[in-house]
Amino acid sequence: MTKKSGDDGRSTIRDVAARAGVSASTVSRVLGGDYPVSAATRTRVLRAVREMDYVADARAKAVAGVGTPTLAFVLEDITGPSFAHMAYGVEREAARLGHLSLVCSTDGDVRRELEFIGMMRAQRAAAVILVGGAADTPEYRERTRRVADSLASAGSRLVLCGRPPLGPGAPVTVIEYDNEGGAYALVAHVLAQGHRRVLFLGGKPDHTTAMGRERGYLAAHRARGLEPDPELLLHGDFTRDSGHRLMRQALARGPEFSAVVAATDMVAAGALTALHEAGLAVPGDVSLAGYDDIPFARDLHPALTTVHVPYEELGRLAVRTALGHGGESAGEHLLLGTHVVVRDSVAAYGGH
Amino acid sequence: MTKKSGDDGRSTIRDVAARAGVSASTVSRVLGGDYPVSAATRTRVLRAVREMDYVADARAKAVAGVGTPTLAFVLEDITGPSFAHMAYGVEREAARLGHLSLVCSTDGDVRRELEFIGMMRAQRAAAVILVGGAADTPEYRERTRRVADSLASAGSRLVLCGRPPLGPGAPVTVIEYDNEGGAYALVAHVLAQGHRRVLFLGGKPDHTTAMGRERGYLAAHRARGLEPDPELLLHGDFTRDSGHRLMRQALARGPEFSAVVAATDMVAAGALTALHEAGLAVPGDVSLAGYDDIPFARDLHPALTTVHVPYEELGRLAVRTALGHGGESAGEHLLLGTHVVVRDSVAAYGGH
Repeated sequence: MTKKSGDDGRSTIRDVAARAGVSASTVSRVLGGDYPVSAATRTRVLRAVREMDYVADARAKAVAGVGTPTLAFVLEDITGPSFAHMAYGVEREAARLGHLSLVCSTDGDVRRELEFIGMMRAQRAAAVILVGGAADTPEYRERTRRVADSLASAGSRLVLCGRPPLGPGAPVTVIEYDNEGGAYALVAHVLAQGHRRVLFLGGKPDHTTAMGRERGYLAAHRARGLEPDPELLLHGDFTRDSGHRLMRQALARGPEFSAVVAATDMVAAGALTALHEAGLAVPGDVSLAGYDDIPFARDLHPALTTVHVPYEELGRLAVRTALGHGGESAGEHLLLGTHVVVRDSVAAYGGH
Repeated sequence: MTKKSGDDGRSTIRDVAARAGVSASTVSRVLGGDYPVSAATRTRVLRAVREMDYVADARAKAVAGVGTPTLAFVLEDITGPSFAHMAYGVEREAARLGHLSLVCSTDGDVRRELEFIGMMRAQRAAAVILVGGAADTPEYRERTRRVADSLASAGSRLVLCGRPPLGPGAPVTVIEYDNEGGAYALVAHVLAQGHRRVLFLGGKPDHTTAMGRERGYLAAHRARGLEPDPELLLHGDFTRDSGHRLMRQALARGPEFSAVVAATDMVAAGALTALHEAGLAVPGDVSLAGYDDIPFARDLHPALTTVHVPYEELGRLAVRTALGHGGESAGEHLLLGTHVVVRDSVAAYGGH
């Protein structure tokens, strides 16, 4: 058995140094991380740390990555229920695979996102998962590419979950779900009920998730040889309050419509209340559909017809892929399917 | 101006050492954190780091606490909308005060909570905020007391937000809201409408938040000289599915009731759907009330009568108090008020 010279029978930094064939100050440098050390030396020291079961100060452990393995998860809005369910999937799968997951909600602030990623790189997080749409600009691609390279150089992996991909060659895993396909199927269902003026309560015009859903709305019309009135396309954000506000505006000023497709279930919830406040029956007077299938979509009255997105499974898959436990290659671009859930909020046009 | 000898005009570790009057290896030790260094030396080195605007490797910066100051926030269930709004308040206020906030959702696993707290201690987080009820056992108090002491020794502060307090002398800030008072006012409102058999869809029987709400239910009855039938008290958890399940059970097997008070709005949402599925009108046949006033409570149909809890403000207050920016003393025990929001889901008994 290897001799352990600490008073309490535990290994000391000198034991580790002897084992690794380096000086105690080199061990300190590796664990401290603030001096350059060759990769070979670093590997030798960390192996000795493990073999000697050396427990340094918790700070040094965390820095050296010999503490609890972690995963990082970045989202824009912690109050959005769809992201919360994805975060739940990440957390459960990370726990199952022995990792702790840390969440940072950035409220859309790029600077805070970069600070958090830097901290997670320093923690040697196994993966950093960025969630939710973004504006797909050259600046976005360049910045995200730098983040991906920086994480890769620290042995960590960047996962983009619903964010725009970076193009070939970037060390990144991309997991998306089919925003456009889901919206296409949903709007085709509404048009098949005979509706011809379908109001669309969309998201921000440069946001990739919002744009995918809007493209699906347009494509479903064009597949039937229809060209929707541009006045039917409204833009806001993905919150309940945005849906309430846009719906009140549309009711006050027009345009005319017989059905409403909301970009998210939260938007639909706000729109539903605005319709009720105006004395309109859903679906008797106006049909309404949402997107996301968050749990309370079925507790709205009428229960909401919507598009099911497997958010929890997306979170689980992101973790499995990033940690190489899924059978999927980390370099793959995965696209998950969505499907329409028909409930009670869409009726045939003029059919009441 | 102090000379900066780096190639790019930035300070090097040698500049910092010269300024602090110590060796470069002592600077490294302070920043690395894995060797004992006297408090005076540590203070001198960190002052020199600040004065020289020395940017070490991000790892060393984080370890030394000279990177972005952070706050940590621990919750049990990231899919619970009330906690999400508290997390949002924490994040916004932390950002306003220049701190990054990290969230860890533990799914109730004490081991993961302790791992995360250890990591945040190592990061020198300014405060660790634990959120949500817990079973108030001697083991809980002892463990949490140890955590508070350990964080205090690292210059960090433990904040308990809705968690049971630890008794006198613990280095901890306690922020609560009045679970019992809110439930008392809500149930008094229901009883004042003439209801005498009020079903209570409660939480876990050993959970302090659930127990506070249950105590308020009982106290409101007793204040009117009533003793509720014990069969009217059901226990589950705080989710939509629990409300749906308990309501179906109660409808199938009894007991009889004319009103339902749910322990959370999510529980009320599930109960509402079960009532609708059974062909019952709310509030025509059965009155229903929730607790929390989460945003979509007003999008349920009928809009839900509930208790408003200032979750976002709780989160903001926790941050201000922990960082000493609120005028409140960190040692104080703060209790925020709640109030009833009367909407459309409670009607007079027999009044339809």
